Amino acid sequence: MKKLVVIGGVAAGMSAAAKARRVDPALQIEVFAAGEYISYGSCGLPYFIGGRINSKEALLARSIDKFASQSINVRILHEVKGIDLKAKKLEVEDLVRGARFEESYDRLVIATGARAIKPPMPGIDLDGIFTLRTIPDSLAIIDYLNKFQPRHAVIIGAGYIGLEMVENLQAHNCSVTVIQGAPQILPGMDPDMAEKVLNYMDSRGVEALTGTTASAFLGRGRVSSVMAGSREVPGDIVIMAVGVRPNSEIAAAAGIELGISKAIRVDQSCATSAADVWAAGDCATIRNLLTGKDSYIALGTNANKQGRVAGENAAGGSASLKGVLGTSIARIMDMEVSRTGLNEEECRQAGIEYQSHVIKSRTAAHYCPVSGEIWLKIIAAREGQRILGAQIAGFMGAGKRIDALATAITAGCTTDELMNMDLAYAPPFSPVWDPILIALDQFGK
Amino acid sequence: MKKLVVIGGVAAGMSAAAKARRVDPALQIEVFAAGEYISYGSCGLPYFIGGRINSKEALLARSIDKFASQSINVRILHEVKGIDLKAKKLEVEDLVRGARFEESYDRLVIATGARAIKPPMPGIDLDGIFTLRTIPDSLAIIDYLNKFQPRHAVIIGAGYIGLEMVENLQAHNCSVTVIQGAPQILPGMDPDMAEKVLNYMDSRGVEALTGTTASAFLGRGRVSSVMAGSREVPGDIVIMAVGVRPNSEIAAAAGIELGISKAIRVDQSCATSAADVWAAGDCATIRNLLTGKDSYIALGTNANKQGRVAGENAAGGSASLKGVLGTSIARIMDMEVSRTGLNEEECRQAGIEYQSHVIKSRTAAHYCPVSGEIWLKIIAAREGQRILGAQIAGFMGAGKRIDALATAITAGCTTDELMNMDLAYAPPFSPVWDPILIALDQFGK
Repeated sequence: MKKLVVIGGVAAGMSAAAKARRVDPALQIEVFAAGEYISYGSCGLPYFIGGRINSKEALLARSIDKFASQSINVRILHEVKGIDLKAKKLEVEDLVRGARFEESYDRLVIATGARAIKPPMPGIDLDGIFTLRTIPDSLAIIDYLNKFQPRHAVIIGAGYIGLEMVENLQAHNCSVTVIQGAPQILPGMDPDMAEKVLNYMDSRGVEALTGTTASAFLGRGRVSSVMAGSREVPGDIVIMAVGVRPNSEIAAAAGIELGISKAIRVDQSCATSAADVWAAGDCATIRNLLTGKDSYIALGTNANKQGRVAGENAAGGSASLKGVLGTSIARIMDMEVSRTGLNEEECRQAGIEYQSHVIKSRTAAHYCPVSGEIWLKIIAAREGQRILGAQIAGFMGAGKRIDALATAITAGCTTDELMNMDLAYAPPFSPVWDPILIALDQFGK
Repeated sequence: MKKLVVIGGVAAGMSAAAKARRVDPALQIEVFAAGEYISYGSCGLPYFIGGRINSKEALLARSIDKFASQSINVRILHEVKGIDLKAKKLEVEDLVRGARFEESYDRLVIATGARAIKPPMPGIDLDGIFTLRTIPDSLAIIDYLNKFQPRHAVIIGAGYIGLEMVENLQAHNCSVTVIQGAPQILPGMDPDMAEKVLNYMDSRGVEALTGTTASAFLGRGRVSSVMAGSREVPGDIVIMAVGVRPNSEIAAAAGIELGISKAIRVDQSCATSAADVWAAGDCATIRNLLTGKDSYIALGTNANKQGRVAGENAAGGSASLKGVLGTSIARIMDMEVSRTGLNEEECRQAGIEYQSHVIKSRTAAHYCPVSGEIWLKIIAAREGQRILGAQIAGFMGAGKRIDALATAITAGCTTDELMNMDLAYAPPFSPVWDPILIALDQFGK
């Protein structure tokens, strides 16, 4: 009987284990998870903190017992410390007992995920400064909020997690200041679209300091303010959301090749440079469908897809993932923000000549109470007008419109092919010309 | 100077006039509208009745003055009674003065729309029995609701307009019974999907009698009940929503060819069988993109698209509309229902061998308060698995997912090409595997 070992118990790891089981009912499957919780929806953590999800149990997709019933043996609080590719053995530490032991494998899936970046800044070790990546992170934040009732929250980093935290800290009666080193919020969006979101945040009383570097934290024991440029910003709780780094060290130490962003380099089958070793999720690279190049995009969607592919292949199948578009979405208070494909900067980096149009419309018929503003941007190749990317910012019903454009990009459509396509209209859902059609129409002019 | 005459002042007619003006600034443009209101959102009328839109003015997209400022001369309450194709003249009746006059044209766009079917049944002329097509229709219904405070509403016909009226009559404290002659509600959906909606209506206390023919109306002066099969159903207000018929009589009398459903037969350029005469909207046929055959689909989206094409061509341009997919959406209380492409019955009629899968999932991550049920069906060709149709029933955020599938059908995609595509995920918007991906995945098994 062959033995598959999976390192990592969250999205990619548990997807891999579950898929491997479906492919090969006879395979021995062992999972080592460094943390206490497995198979949980980490993307839900901001809403858990905000009280919109009332128990951490709700975040758990499947329990250890559920996996056990499928003969998938999960050992939590077990950290893999080293990989011996030649001997096909792992060195594992039981974090509860402190004991180390060896575990052999025939096939290995590495799904060690990523960790939040916490840069070495003066005062970083003060109480009240958090990153948010895991259930224990979120429990620590909730405890702190309840215990010290902070009133001024500072979020460092204006990506999705940072901005999703705005409403969830407001729910704890905190005013919120966002500090962003880059000149714009939402690094995946173009500046013109990010500005719509910034204006909205401003209208809702959220201060956002862009192009401003947080340099130090001040306080006695507990953080009380943040130095941002020349300003001292009051902050009795701080969320650091400046990005993540792949947990690729044990792979690298074993001699497995790393790629972009020091993530484990994998091909479309999630195979690494080492025989019988696959990698998936936030620790691994992923192919961009449009450029054909490796990218590093730590998202739950990618982790689940790669996990399945790695699991299938590790069980003897032959799955592959052609690539992804970096499609993503977030709710920022009442605003929905989404993107897919290449943005303008990514087009320039790829050397692609493009044209783009931004339109402003409504999410529903103008006379409907649910109707809100929507800005929608489409980017297409200058030659041939193949659709390359899209971005949306708007209110209820705006964000998921990105899926039609992700579909169009996957299908290789030009703006011309879709110009008069038949999208759904009724007053509560759309103007008679859906914003997507209005945007496509700009390319025909 | 050439003269374009447009017959009809709602979606198709005013789209044609506006587009013609943009194409040819010098064209003389005359519009005759039989009604009092022009350029209004008739799809909003159910919500206007329900009080969700608080003035009829909100429904008006553009005023007569606005058109006049673009040198588009609109005469309301003017009904065109006849067309002389040889002499290129119309006979027009001024409905206010009762006078008739002749109007010449160089080019003609017929956009006479459709009228609600009101079958000759015993008691049909009792007060309190309405159809809903125009602003005056809706005003009459509102007056009746306010004056007589009916408590039991009967809706005859379980298409979109009938079912959209459910919540809007409930808003006036009416209990609602729906009577549908066909064995299922929502004739555009497959029976298995229509059943989900029926179950939901039942759970919300709406009685739906399917396979039941309303045969007579009873009452003294005002309607008080409806004979439905062998039952007498109490109903002190009745909405007849059994479909529409194209207003094609003057075209037919002039010798212009009619097509399916006695609608004016047009090609992809909206040209009729007569020289210099185009037709658009609910009075005209429209090409089905998948079958290549003429169909009759009276929807605002189609009217606007055909109106533009007819207007452009009547002004000397060369526009065409490849076809439509019958994409549509409706809100039925809190449920969203949508469809695109061919349903199973339409596949059978077209002689296409197909396979289909229905999945049940959630509109958002299961742990999110906004998460609701969604049923999603995809139909694909048995050979080659080209996607042919899709249907959705579900709660908030479900319905507009149909657009990604309408895009896929327009692009000619197979299920295989899209199987692992990169759709947007965040907990408030989707499970990590969007329902579309779950449904596509069934075809790979």
